[in-house]
Amino acid sequence: MAQSANPAAKPVVVIGAGFAGIEVARGLGKAGIAVILIDRRNHHLFQPLLYQVATAALSPADIAEPIRKMVRDYPSVEVLLDEVTGIDKAAQSVSLASGGTIPYSVLVIATGATHSYFGHDEWAPFAPGLKTIEDARKIRSRLLLAFERAEMSPDPAERKRLLTIAVVGGGPTGVELAGSIAELSRSMLAKDFRTIRHETASVLLLEAGTRILTAFPPALASYAMGKLQKLGVTVRLKTEVENITAHSIVAAGEEIPVGMAIWAAGVKASNMGKLLGVETDRAERIAVAPDLCVPNLSNVYALGDISSLRDERGALLPGLAQVAKQQGEYLGRTLAKKIQSGTSPPPFRFHNRGNTAIVGRHAAVFDFGWWQIRGWFAWAFWALIHVYLLVGFQHRLMVAIQWLWKYVTYEQGSRLIAEQ
Amino acid sequence: MAQSANPAAKPVVVIGAGFAGIEVARGLGKAGIAVILIDRRNHHLFQPLLYQVATAALSPADIAEPIRKMVRDYPSVEVLLDEVTGIDKAAQSVSLASGGTIPYSVLVIATGATHSYFGHDEWAPFAPGLKTIEDARKIRSRLLLAFERAEMSPDPAERKRLLTIAVVGGGPTGVELAGSIAELSRSMLAKDFRTIRHETASVLLLEAGTRILTAFPPALASYAMGKLQKLGVTVRLKTEVENITAHSIVAAGEEIPVGMAIWAAGVKASNMGKLLGVETDRAERIAVAPDLCVPNLSNVYALGDISSLRDERGALLPGLAQVAKQQGEYLGRTLAKKIQSGTSPPPFRFHNRGNTAIVGRHAAVFDFGWWQIRGWFAWAFWALIHVYLLVGFQHRLMVAIQWLWKYVTYEQGSRLIAEQ
Repeated sequence: MAQSANPAAKPVVVIGAGFAGIEVARGLGKAGIAVILIDRRNHHLFQPLLYQVATAALSPADIAEPIRKMVRDYPSVEVLLDEVTGIDKAAQSVSLASGGTIPYSVLVIATGATHSYFGHDEWAPFAPGLKTIEDARKIRSRLLLAFERAEMSPDPAERKRLLTIAVVGGGPTGVELAGSIAELSRSMLAKDFRTIRHETASVLLLEAGTRILTAFPPALASYAMGKLQKLGVTVRLKTEVENITAHSIVAAGEEIPVGMAIWAAGVKASNMGKLLGVETDRAERIAVAPDLCVPNLSNVYALGDISSLRDERGALLPGLAQVAKQQGEYLGRTLAKKIQSGTSPPPFRFHNRGNTAIVGRHAAVFDFGWWQIRGWFAWAFWALIHVYLLVGFQHRLMVAIQWLWKYVTYEQGSRLIAEQ
Repeated sequence: MAQSANPAAKPVVVIGAGFAGIEVARGLGKAGIAVILIDRRNHHLFQPLLYQVATAALSPADIAEPIRKMVRDYPSVEVLLDEVTGIDKAAQSVSLASGGTIPYSVLVIATGATHSYFGHDEWAPFAPGLKTIEDARKIRSRLLLAFERAEMSPDPAERKRLLTIAVVGGGPTGVELAGSIAELSRSMLAKDFRTIRHETASVLLLEAGTRILTAFPPALASYAMGKLQKLGVTVRLKTEVENITAHSIVAAGEEIPVGMAIWAAGVKASNMGKLLGVETDRAERIAVAPDLCVPNLSNVYALGDISSLRDERGALLPGLAQVAKQQGEYLGRTLAKKIQSGTSPPPFRFHNRGNTAIVGRHAAVFDFGWWQIRGWFAWAFWALIHVYLLVGFQHRLMVAIQWLWKYVTYEQGSRLIAEQ
């Protein structure tokens, strides 16, 4: 294994190459500190745009970047495609699915979150969540297949079922999925199908709470709600899902026949808290100190969606890409200093760069705390920022072109059914 | 089902929406003739560029176009995502995997070819062929995984095995795969890996015959052979494959440990000849008359890779995209005339637009019969033609940009491992 080149010096081991982990590795790499970055995937994923892969607007490669490429400028950073299956705090090492063991001087856990079916894992096959490229491909294929089957079906009731797409959960992901599925179905049905009509199709957004987008101010949420309805999305509030099967959803006592369901209702942290043997909260997150250190373990850090931290006013930091990214930058910088000169870092402070959700064409909401925008300007701003944030230049260019193309032609470019 | 709108008129049923089938449907659609176009996939695939998806240069959606979109301008053409499981010549109908039956007035078979392991189907799991998007994704993932595992392996012999990629078959697909894998491995290993060296990696091209590219003049083939060797590809001629297992290939009596094998050695026609109950040749192709009609069946046509036809000089037409496309255009036009005015068509004539294969950067061969080119000019011409031939304008633009990017940066944009 690679670290045998210098067996005396134990590296910093970073688990997870998402927004948080990749920034930690880069920060340490910049300082020349030996890092082993472990991820189950060979790519970093720009998750905020994953819903666009699921709805056929972008290709997977547009929002994924090889991890090796992202740290190529830092010779002290090594990448391992592997899965951590155990953590030995006493020996200070992690064990890998492939069989090896890696000793660490400092352990950084940034493995993110996965979807939670609130104890109903039996719903998972019928209502996929959206966390990985495979999830996005699965949703895209099922969505397009439902339309194909509806076109072939001679039975109006079956056709109506197939054309009813339910999204569970009214957070940003649910809103973005519902809005873009409504747009996709409208443009596809108008142009490419002969038998089924746009009027038969419906998108349901089911939310258990009293409003959608609870992380946003009420004014922005009600704006988004209005825009969704204009797109043809039926938003049902106070509608708790009671059961999901292959062909229907039971919600608020009513059985609704559906062509497909998507789960955007809940997330929980990945299982690293358990592997580490520390206490976690209800969502399985590890509570960390203001320097992102895991309490009572001076050389173990956790950050991003797997961690929970309160800001100076006592509010829990949200599970957003910008929080993970800022924490990663903070830890990369402060940990390098601590390792090289022993200085204690100032506490992490989150700077809100604006919380955003997009509903559809010309319709987005942006909440900067001190300023709120919505509509055309928020939408254009959203697009600009996201193109800017995409890691590699080629991706930026490709995404920008595809968005422009879609904007002008109302066509989604990646309408590919390729799962069997 | 859709055709019930006018149950009296039986449609022309076209099976397969590849280069041949899509052109037949369009030609008939232009004349307003009712067509049902049946395909197992929702997309038409630009197969000549599939090797670029397999070697991480392009994304699947760049070379796939929804079939519905391609025939959207012809209201008389309906698309069915389904598989034909039987043909009843007496009743003039086809039966579908989904359970229905479709009556036809004329049947057009354009289901193409699949790979043939020459009776060794047990090799298929270890040496995937390249015909579908899924094949390309599988090859891409295995290829990238072999490199990742080599990087992690402490054993030099195992590392050497993992970095040995074998391509079986020295036709255009084999040459294109071998050349682009060599280029991919050189650029990736130089930049993104720490432990494994470019010198350890090798690409083998195994060919049973006495030379590669037998469909090309010897001068072009030996030029391609020289270029491949310069790229680091080891070409072994007169090397028949005797066995393929998970970790090795036995060829010409020698067992070669390999990290992955790819099958580009043989194709056979899809099984429609059997379903139709007609005689087929050794490659399971249906011999057709010069008007592409299946002998003794006046209203059944076959064209493209499933058919075999000799040109005026008695030579068998090759299994190329341009043959399939020209036959599709011919049949769309002549069949429309025959249906509408009963005129018998002139025989099909193939116009050779140039047979081509690409070896790598600045290296391609082009054979126009009366003119042969190779090198930089052939390579640029190849790129131009292929961008031109891509069906939708967005695809053209996206492919052109990605090629330009790859040309300037030596980077493949789609290095995504996403199969499990």
